Amino acid sequence: MPVRLSRHTLRRRVNFYEVDQAAIVHFSCYYRYMEEAEHAFWRAAGLALTDAGTLGFPRVSSAFEYHAPLRFDDEFDAELQIAAIGRSSLRYTCRMTRDGTPIATGTMTIVCVEIGPPMRAVPLPRAILERIEVVS
Amino acid sequence: MPVRLSRHTLRRRVNFYEVDQAAIVHFSCYYRYMEEAEHAFWRAAGLALTDAGTLGFPRVSSAFEYHAPLRFDDEFDAELQIAAIGRSSLRYTCRMTRDGTPIATGTMTIVCVEIGPPMRAVPLPRAILERIEVVS
Amino acid sequence: MPVRLSRHTLRRRVNFYEVDQAAIVHFSCYYRYMEEAEHAFWRAAGLALTDAGTLGFPRVSSAFEYHAPLRFDDEFDAELQIAAIGRSSLRYTCRMTRDGTPIATGTMTIVCVEIGPPMRAVPLPRAILERIEVVS
Amino acid sequence: MPVRLSRHTLRRRVNFYEVDQAAIVHFSCYYRYMEEAEHAFWRAAGLALTDAGTLGFPRVSSAFEYHAPLRFDDEFDAELQIAAIGRSSLRYTCRMTRDGTPIATGTMTIVCVEIGPPMRAVPLPRAILERIEVVS
Repeated sequence: MPVRLSRHTLRRRVNFYEVDQAAIVHFSCYYRYMEEAEHAFWRAAGLALTDAGTLGFPRVSSAFEYHAPLRFDDEFDAELQIAAIGRSSLRYTCRMTRDGTPIATGTMTIVCVEIGPPMRAVPLPRAILERIEVVS
Repeated sequence: MPVRLSRHTLRRRVNFYEVDQAAIVHFSCYYRYMEEAEHAFWRAAGLALTDAGTLGFPRVSSAFEYHAPLRFDDEFDAELQIAAIGRSSLRYTCRMTRDGTPIATGTMTIVCVEIGPPMRAVPLPRAILERIEVVS
Repeated sequence: MPVRLSRHTLRRRVNFYEVDQAAIVHFSCYYRYMEEAEHAFWRAAGLALTDAGTLGFPRVSSAFEYHAPLRFDDEFDAELQIAAIGRSSLRYTCRMTRDGTPIATGTMTIVCVEIGPPMRAVPLPRAILERIEVVS
Repeated sequence: MPVRLSRHTLRRRVNFYEVDQAAIVHFSCYYRYMEEAEHAFWRAAGLALTDAGTLGFPRVSSAFEYHAPLRFDDEFDAELQIAAIGRSSLRYTCRMTRDGTPIATGTMTIVCVEIGPPMRAVPLPRAILERIEVVS
């Protein structure tokens, strides 16, 4: 029986082009970091959401709270967790830290759809459900 | 007595490089659109947050709910509103529509700080407060 | 007989998220500005390269020389010109100026292909050729 | 006597947000990859261009030729080389490959300046010159 994954951590370094004129990472980049952690999670789970045939997984919401800034060349960790599993949707949380210091906390909800048009929400496929579980 | 501004609408066209391989605008770009609307708001109010001496305005939170996708070359409106004014902070909402169709709804909170280090929250300056009011 | 277009100018303002910690526009953004000017050119010519059925137009080369920096909120012009028309390829030049001051000069070559796989270069379609001419 | 560095290779995976609706990496992203390889080169050489006091290193030119596309999740190598060392300037080349297949070849020239205003070209500092040499 395969192991179910509930969390995965991506280590990442801040690129120069992600930093704004206040010398801190632009707030929009955290969403890209969360997405990188999301894809790393699925890779670790042995799956790829981009390889699901007629199914797509658009985002329905995303959010971040920012606790402390990141600067150029900083190394940080982005830990993605499965926060909730619904019939058609998944909710992630993402905790970003630098040497243990809280940097930012994000969430993102995706929904499983038949790629349309029109898009139509459908149940999450078994191939996904049997690889993941909500973080405890 | 100067008019106080509570909302401003930016009209914008989707650029090719903002669209992902699902042929829709990447979810992170909405935060950049919201920031463009924010700067357009302040320009309309006769101010620039980037020109406030030793004060800075980092984001403490941001969020979006996505209702319908945008595609390459779509024209859309991003209406920024002042949702709340605190002692040291401001909260915006941003309603994005395409020909009246709801596309996405965002929020963003910024805090006024003395640029450090360390950063320290301080009251919003009068020059800002006398130009804005909460949307009714 | 339709007018043939050889140049088109896009007016644009620098966004905050395009500026790096040296407080100047990141050098990679000029390629995105050139692409915006390219799409504005085709729109002005009554065409869209993204709407050409089984044909695609990948870039085979791009380049910029940087003369002076752009800063946040600067307004600038990006003039795109048709520099050369080949059997399967087009070469653009893009002159960027701010109030007449030279900012940067770019070039970009695209090739017309049948979208594969494999991609295969094919002659530029008549619908495109009869709308454009090399700048004189 | 310290080793002089003339080349360094960065291994990198394509992120989802770097891919456009043609399902290939957007041509502007190669410039960001080249910059990542540049900073990795200097890190390997024990230096940071961003930590040079009153000196700055703006780009004066950049270019890429594109040989084959990269797609989401592809792993690739970006090998940065010191192509030329001038009195005030450096020229890099960057060869990008995926499993040995040529993907793209780039160049970038930077100039050493006293950060102004006005900016003024000055000789490359000895601390930099004694760590690098032109690739043979």
